[in-house]
Amino acid sequence: MSTQTLFNVAVVGATGAVGEQILKLLEERNFPLASLKLLSSARSAGTKIAFKGKELTVEEAKPESFKGVDIALFSAGGDVSKALIPHAVEHGAVCIDNTNAYRMDPETPLVVPEVNIDKISDHKGIIANPNCSTIQMVAALKPLYDRYGMSRIIVSTYQAVSGAGAKAINEMLRQSREVLAGNDANPDILPSASLPVKHQIAFNVIPQIDKFTDNGFTLEEMKMIRETKKIMGDDTLEVTATCVRVPVVYGHSESVYVELKSDFEIEDVKNLLSDAPGIVLLDDPAGQQYPMPVFAAGKNETFVGRVRRDISNPRGLNLWIVSDNLLKGAAWNAVQIAEYIAIPQ
Amino acid sequence: MSTQTLFNVAVVGATGAVGEQILKLLEERNFPLASLKLLSSARSAGTKIAFKGKELTVEEAKPESFKGVDIALFSAGGDVSKALIPHAVEHGAVCIDNTNAYRMDPETPLVVPEVNIDKISDHKGIIANPNCSTIQMVAALKPLYDRYGMSRIIVSTYQAVSGAGAKAINEMLRQSREVLAGNDANPDILPSASLPVKHQIAFNVIPQIDKFTDNGFTLEEMKMIRETKKIMGDDTLEVTATCVRVPVVYGHSESVYVELKSDFEIEDVKNLLSDAPGIVLLDDPAGQQYPMPVFAAGKNETFVGRVRRDISNPRGLNLWIVSDNLLKGAAWNAVQIAEYIAIPQ
Repeated sequence: MSTQTLFNVAVVGATGAVGEQILKLLEERNFPLASLKLLSSARSAGTKIAFKGKELTVEEAKPESFKGVDIALFSAGGDVSKALIPHAVEHGAVCIDNTNAYRMDPETPLVVPEVNIDKISDHKGIIANPNCSTIQMVAALKPLYDRYGMSRIIVSTYQAVSGAGAKAINEMLRQSREVLAGNDANPDILPSASLPVKHQIAFNVIPQIDKFTDNGFTLEEMKMIRETKKIMGDDTLEVTATCVRVPVVYGHSESVYVELKSDFEIEDVKNLLSDAPGIVLLDDPAGQQYPMPVFAAGKNETFVGRVRRDISNPRGLNLWIVSDNLLKGAAWNAVQIAEYIAIPQ
Repeated sequence: MSTQTLFNVAVVGATGAVGEQILKLLEERNFPLASLKLLSSARSAGTKIAFKGKELTVEEAKPESFKGVDIALFSAGGDVSKALIPHAVEHGAVCIDNTNAYRMDPETPLVVPEVNIDKISDHKGIIANPNCSTIQMVAALKPLYDRYGMSRIIVSTYQAVSGAGAKAINEMLRQSREVLAGNDANPDILPSASLPVKHQIAFNVIPQIDKFTDNGFTLEEMKMIRETKKIMGDDTLEVTATCVRVPVVYGHSESVYVELKSDFEIEDVKNLLSDAPGIVLLDDPAGQQYPMPVFAAGKNETFVGRVRRDISNPRGLNLWIVSDNLLKGAAWNAVQIAEYIAIPQ
């Protein structure tokens, strides 16, 4: 005989691109649910969503929505998180926040389970899910950091439009059809719905994700820099990032250069990656096999390939890291955290 | 009164993507032509091409085709260059070769006019045009190299399909239509027509350009590494590269990280780039202006933006460099060299 503790779970932003994936994962993983509450903005309230054969109705998220909720997963934007999470915490819910609202709050653990699951126990009601482009990078780099030490990371990203939400996906597909038909792209959403200037994404790349900060880096780049240091727990780690949107639907790719603190054999690096939790080494130059977004889409793992030593620096290492930005980059990392809270490991 | 020397010019690979641009430039620039001979493979011989209102017929390129030719521009693949250039040189032609055949030959100058035009006079009948991704990078970095010294370059590229020829363009457009219609992409050309495994390029990125070499780098990456050192004339310069194909038709983009040897002010760096020949600084974060391939397509200049100091390294600098790979990356650089030969500067 055995007993299982069941949890009252709320998903805030249930109708969004990430919310949809969270529900799919809760279903697939057979998460121990006592109840499931779907919450959204007033605009999407009333939407019906099927879950395990039942039809659930999305409700408007309000401060009082969290009464009796044990675990709340937030992915409805930073403003919603800032407005509602304090109420949810007051009601006793553990909040897993997928937005930027609390990530750099010193009181809030910023967690990638493969990297720093030990930080979960420090939470004061909120656990932050890192930015999508940060998660896959630190998940892949952690085993190398632990084994060799790491002094520097230089990363250039190739980020899918789904990172900017369902509207950005539709926008890219619409623009692609227009351009193929010989028409103007008429950009309307990217680089960001909240920014004044719009650029074509179909058959183009845009070197801006999120707004610019005063130092010339975008907020997305600063997220990668700051969050990586926090998650690795190492303020001396030098990180620089260039974040670029590419015309891909699902799956962020990253060209990552790292400097390790001690000598390495490339085969040992590959073995460490092969053995690392959540990581799949896909690196066969002879067979032309390496990670690509169309391959990683829909999978929970982070894929690593193009692993090679910098010929100009024996402690320099190049890697190519790809993962589904809505899964490991968002929904799957959040559900992993929820499982660590709910299920005795 | 003035006299102008006129030249007998041959274009080998006249029906290809680069050949087409060379002809357009010779026309636009009013190149001092005594005669123009269009050459190609036997398969394309007989094709009619309009030039300055006249119809020219493409002839099959043969060893004897170069009798009386003063300047021959080659862009028909490395094998054609290797087979025919020795004959052209023997006939007294100066050959400007756009392939990989002679680039690393110590007897052959490898020339980007903005960087090392002084090397042209060393030629023994052959001047090599560098690889497209190398040209735009060294053109942008040269003024910084000269002013501050440079110890290291780490580059990740976002390369357009036109770099793999007209067939790759058609392939990407066909695949895009198929995927938008819900069908399989059925990849047939990329990463390279000559390699056994093909990958989807529509709505994807492929981290392989050209074949792999034994050290895990692709030949495209090794070209960037070796050619950059040769053009800069500096074997101590540390270069590492990751070359990636993206679903863009025209225009290569590059995320470039450099370490300078002396301190710099970011405004001085921007001024140097603004004043550099062939370079356009396009860097206005507040106005969301930065180079992008759809903007650079069809233009001869190299565009630089996202210029910012690495916050973790005061001598580290990030740049974003975009240029039309068929123009500055190929045809325009070759025609610039031809102009330096033909026209007293």
